[in-house]
Amino acid sequence: MNYTDRIKRLQRSLATHKLDSFLVTHPPNVRYLCGFTGSASALLISGRKATFFTDGRYITQAKEEIQGARVVIAQKPPLAAAAEWLAKKSPPTTVGIEGDHLTVAERARLVGLLPKGVRLKSSPPLVEQERLVKDSDEIELLRSAVLLGSSLFDVALKSIRPGVREIEVAAEMEYAARRAGADALSFETIIASGERSALPHGRASEAKIPASGFVVCDFGVILTGYCSDMTRTVYVGRPPDEARRLYEAVKSAQQAAVESVRPGVSVGEVDGAARKMLQREGLGRYFTHSTGHGVGLEIHESPRVAAGQKDVLGPGMVITIEPGAYIPGRWGVRIEDIVAVTETGCDVLTPTSKELITI
Amino acid sequence: MNYTDRIKRLQRSLATHKLDSFLVTHPPNVRYLCGFTGSASALLISGRKATFFTDGRYITQAKEEIQGARVVIAQKPPLAAAAEWLAKKSPPTTVGIEGDHLTVAERARLVGLLPKGVRLKSSPPLVEQERLVKDSDEIELLRSAVLLGSSLFDVALKSIRPGVREIEVAAEMEYAARRAGADALSFETIIASGERSALPHGRASEAKIPASGFVVCDFGVILTGYCSDMTRTVYVGRPPDEARRLYEAVKSAQQAAVESVRPGVSVGEVDGAARKMLQREGLGRYFTHSTGHGVGLEIHESPRVAAGQKDVLGPGMVITIEPGAYIPGRWGVRIEDIVAVTETGCDVLTPTSKELITI
Repeated sequence: MNYTDRIKRLQRSLATHKLDSFLVTHPPNVRYLCGFTGSASALLISGRKATFFTDGRYITQAKEEIQGARVVIAQKPPLAAAAEWLAKKSPPTTVGIEGDHLTVAERARLVGLLPKGVRLKSSPPLVEQERLVKDSDEIELLRSAVLLGSSLFDVALKSIRPGVREIEVAAEMEYAARRAGADALSFETIIASGERSALPHGRASEAKIPASGFVVCDFGVILTGYCSDMTRTVYVGRPPDEARRLYEAVKSAQQAAVESVRPGVSVGEVDGAARKMLQREGLGRYFTHSTGHGVGLEIHESPRVAAGQKDVLGPGMVITIEPGAYIPGRWGVRIEDIVAVTETGCDVLTPTSKELITI
Repeated sequence: MNYTDRIKRLQRSLATHKLDSFLVTHPPNVRYLCGFTGSASALLISGRKATFFTDGRYITQAKEEIQGARVVIAQKPPLAAAAEWLAKKSPPTTVGIEGDHLTVAERARLVGLLPKGVRLKSSPPLVEQERLVKDSDEIELLRSAVLLGSSLFDVALKSIRPGVREIEVAAEMEYAARRAGADALSFETIIASGERSALPHGRASEAKIPASGFVVCDFGVILTGYCSDMTRTVYVGRPPDEARRLYEAVKSAQQAAVESVRPGVSVGEVDGAARKMLQREGLGRYFTHSTGHGVGLEIHESPRVAAGQKDVLGPGMVITIEPGAYIPGRWGVRIEDIVAVTETGCDVLTPTSKELITI
């Protein structure tokens, strides 16, 4: 990773936003800029310098990981240490803060620690804007995470059968993920069977997989910091025509959305491509969430691929495409891939078939 | 869980803090007050009412889970829905917000959505103050989580041997946790072997366990929402006297801190009990973190059991006691139990022996 370049890009953007420095406190943003993977940290970026603050627990880790920034190990919390550092500068100075992450109380503490003349300014998400477009190193890390993630679907297929608890299926998948080197799961594994498949967020529960019905499997890993995210829905037993129609409708919607992805298209249009297909099948009102989201160091990043959103896709953006339809009390289907926007269209990183699998 | 009583207690405290209502947005706080386990939510508590806001993804789940509050399924994000609701009230009105959780940007959005006369006031952590003292239902849930957590140490003991990757040990433990019904892990499992045992936060890595040295195992599960947290350190190979001395010093410090826990004692004194023992052995400067933290619905809750902290322990509080000593580049030891403060002392919930185990 070229951390020095990332920090330089941020430094160049400070003047545009009328900032003398920018205080980065959101851990994925800190990691993106200087490589630190711990939790307690603050990174202060000024026109020419980058200073990283952490506490005594991270002495060794900071030395091993940090690139492009001077490391300060403080006796106090990193935010307080950064405030003390700022207080030594000659005011007046304007410091950008991450308004999307810094809490109201943290901001108040900072204000209390800073002398007059140091002005805090809640800034646009400058680092997230950089993170929106992934560089080739990141695309490769995402591809590796997606491949590991997709291999867990094979594990799920071996585990899913009537009478097995959803949580056991999740356990098998997560075990395989960890043995294969995943840092962690990117979110709580969803295994939602039978009526529970109608819950868009049906985390794996103690419920037993019934003799027939859909099983929605939505899962992801974190590998070398990058998140995968994938959904497949299978049918246990012999699917009635109605189930096949529901599945095919969602599959067509997902495919239409994938095909709409290319530079210059807005994320609202991508959402619309999926939504229109489901509406055509009379399923519009059962598609109760948005079509997708950006993914990278975090499982949910910009852009939100949702109705009416105006963000325009460009090469290097990586998003999920995951429409679904949920009939409350009955069943539900969701299908999800990760795609990377290319110069001419998109590269579907998820390698797994979307044909209906029956078990 | 008696959600109605919890909401009533909060309602009674509103007047003391000169609030007409209180807007709860931190998910563990929402869960504590009304039982909702999802993520996207806001709970507005006024003198006599409790109104819960979520979005279309959670229709079924909200109906199943929520107790003691009216449920509003909104077409917009929960915070915006709550703001719209507040805007309909006749101002002037003062609304408490969770300053420790609401971000600077969220607060700004709220301000933009509210009419003049609705005043936002960053409030003390009212719900966390209630959560500080666990009721008997919560203690039992914590006990169950701690017991499940402690069973994973047996799994670790079976997996730890020279040449095995740290991450494989973690995978075995996490697999057992999930099969036994854990919702999730309460944090990323730490398996830190050899020199890595000197990293207080040495998450399980691809490193292979060496032929001799300490292995720090720090791990926890979430069961029915409540977190466990436990550390044991074992020695692979034949421990030299120096290793035994280090281990015994940490064990004595941990024991001294446990013995100091009773109502009326400050958390700073508990920290001091551990720190003094390590200082006496010349290890004070190698104990680079605090002695512990509260634990419950979150893995890190109040109080911070740290030097100089004045919070006074009372019955029903549940904290970790986890001193350690870390010689950089060499090795480290940490031992951690969870204890519940009783009327006369404390109940060590963690059942596992603290004698040095050699493998």
